[in-house]
Amino acid sequence: MKTTPITAALLGNLVVAGLLAQQPARRPPPEPPIQSPEVHPDRRVTFRLRGPNVREVKLNANWHSGEKAFLRGEDGIWTLTIGPLEPDIYNYTYSIDGVTTIDPHNPAVKTGVRPASSVLEVPAPAPAFYDVRAVPHGAVHIHHYQSKATGQTRRLHVYTPPGYAGAPNRRYPVLYLLHGAGDDDSGWMHIGRAHLIMDNLIAEGKTVEALIVMPFGHILPLGDLRAGWERQNQLVEKDLLEDVIPFIEANYRVRRDPDSRAIAGLSMGGGQSARIGLGHPDLFHWVGMFSAAVREPASNEALQRFLADPAKSNAALRLLWIGCGKDDFLLEANQQFVALLEAKGIRHTWRLTEGDHSWPVWRRYLHELLPLLFRQGRT
Amino acid sequence: MKTTPITAALLGNLVVAGLLAQQPARRPPPEPPIQSPEVHPDRRVTFRLRGPNVREVKLNANWHSGEKAFLRGEDGIWTLTIGPLEPDIYNYTYSIDGVTTIDPHNPAVKTGVRPASSVLEVPAPAPAFYDVRAVPHGAVHIHHYQSKATGQTRRLHVYTPPGYAGAPNRRYPVLYLLHGAGDDDSGWMHIGRAHLIMDNLIAEGKTVEALIVMPFGHILPLGDLRAGWERQNQLVEKDLLEDVIPFIEANYRVRRDPDSRAIAGLSMGGGQSARIGLGHPDLFHWVGMFSAAVREPASNEALQRFLADPAKSNAALRLLWIGCGKDDFLLEANQQFVALLEAKGIRHTWRLTEGDHSWPVWRRYLHELLPLLFRQGRT
Repeated sequence: MKTTPITAALLGNLVVAGLLAQQPARRPPPEPPIQSPEVHPDRRVTFRLRGPNVREVKLNANWHSGEKAFLRGEDGIWTLTIGPLEPDIYNYTYSIDGVTTIDPHNPAVKTGVRPASSVLEVPAPAPAFYDVRAVPHGAVHIHHYQSKATGQTRRLHVYTPPGYAGAPNRRYPVLYLLHGAGDDDSGWMHIGRAHLIMDNLIAEGKTVEALIVMPFGHILPLGDLRAGWERQNQLVEKDLLEDVIPFIEANYRVRRDPDSRAIAGLSMGGGQSARIGLGHPDLFHWVGMFSAAVREPASNEALQRFLADPAKSNAALRLLWIGCGKDDFLLEANQQFVALLEAKGIRHTWRLTEGDHSWPVWRRYLHELLPLLFRQGRT
Repeated sequence: MKTTPITAALLGNLVVAGLLAQQPARRPPPEPPIQSPEVHPDRRVTFRLRGPNVREVKLNANWHSGEKAFLRGEDGIWTLTIGPLEPDIYNYTYSIDGVTTIDPHNPAVKTGVRPASSVLEVPAPAPAFYDVRAVPHGAVHIHHYQSKATGQTRRLHVYTPPGYAGAPNRRYPVLYLLHGAGDDDSGWMHIGRAHLIMDNLIAEGKTVEALIVMPFGHILPLGDLRAGWERQNQLVEKDLLEDVIPFIEANYRVRRDPDSRAIAGLSMGGGQSARIGLGHPDLFHWVGMFSAAVREPASNEALQRFLADPAKSNAALRLLWIGCGKDDFLLEANQQFVALLEAKGIRHTWRLTEGDHSWPVWRRYLHELLPLLFRQGRT
């Protein structure tokens, strides 16, 4: 092991006691920090931007219909105050001289496979269903696995409930939970709070304890997607059936009967859940579609088979849960899909809710779906 | 379960086959995507920004000493090409009309407790020591635990090596790995790639298989820190000794002798490692300090005890590894600490390397440290 010799010159610099810099500061002093967003006690929210040379600042937030333009102070700090807002977790961006980007002062950032956005959390008076509470907590495990279906080393997240490690002889049901086109396999944890929602429901005795497996839903390079959605969905299905499920069943104590296997997802992942879940009623008896990108049953053989024999499909499925917000741009597609199910006589739960194509809706859908899963008998 | 009735009017909208929107598009068509950064085959890198109304764009990157100003094209797209760059993972931000923020077009973002930065990865011809390779992979586990020392529900990350789950009777040594002031407990994984570095070293047979525990190093609100560093470091120590280590030893198969316990960290976490590791030679026999914020041994009783009895300290410690870059703003403090060790005759390894206060340095330090840990005999 090479040790650099201490030179006499260096030693000469030594002072006997308290010799180390208390706040080493060869760097230029930073500008005073800007707090943005600031949530006031009355749940109004102030956004800020230090931008003395900027000419225009706007808030991009489709959940906010009021004033969006910031005002410039004499100190070069722009501000906008809105609300009061309902307690929730919101995403937003700034428009700075026409450029859409995050709030540069806010460390809370939603990342994924598309450009980032900022995160605003308006706390509730008591911890919300998605907050960290002083309850027993499960764990989230991040794995890489070799996917034969795609030839890739891929990543997934797995939630195990609080009692899992201490119950070596118990097997659990599994929910496969799929993300949207802008996210990755960490999205349902980081922004969806799936693990905390489940911890809290379990603590309240409101749900069956289960694992939640969150795989990665992109396989093709994003640039290829406009031509390649169908190809990607085929690969996602193959990866899930031939690699993800075997990996989970080899490495976790899970039940393997279709009554103990659910699949649900949002947007792109909702479409994948329909394709995979409804296309394989021998594997999945619980299916959830959140603001789903439901597409082209005519071109999907497995979905056609599911639709072609309603009696058989009804006998297999325990729950087909479909939710969409009134302001979601995918509402019409979902209404058409639901109408098709109605016309065919295929049982389902249809929830037309407030909200648009956004995470506040999907957290609530998961919170509503989890207590319905893996119950005895048909929901 | 409430099911919204399908109305006749809605059913009337049905077309018999292929009825679902192929690309539901009530949203305005998005602008064509901008690729930024683009890494060219010769490892030059082009940064871009769509900003027709912007007056000035600059690159903030202390690893780049050349041109930093973007040029505006007639299409309103600003560009800057630099390099070629050495293969590595770099952090950068933009200055857009004087506002420091991420590259809005780049989904790769480093997050933490301070404002985000963008991530540029320049791939090497063959996978680097921090890349995902087709080798056996360990897993990273995310836990919440009740910290009695702080009264908080806190989070930590734990890496287990590839063979861990399959070796139920084996106990492993543990490295406690601490992050810097801008990061959180996910930093050593997300940006440090600690799990992948360990996977690759294990696959090459170059290191002893060990767990890596990555706790969260902030306890006080960030705004209080300028007055509260000493208080925070006391709490971090108390939390680690009284909550983190007991949690790990209760939930993972780890060895509990000090020869099997290491602590290392970067910057703030390097200072904490010195405080906790050198202050408790009964618990830790391996200590690593990466660009450490080493401060005030005169005011730290445990560190004073360590320095006061060099013979005892030398007999206990297996390795005290200290690294700092030539361009690091903490270099002088580290040199003074090393000189103090020299003056006292306390054995250590001092690595004065290229680099500044940044992640490319710390990934390499971890890659250099891991093979030295938990070996038989003194390194």
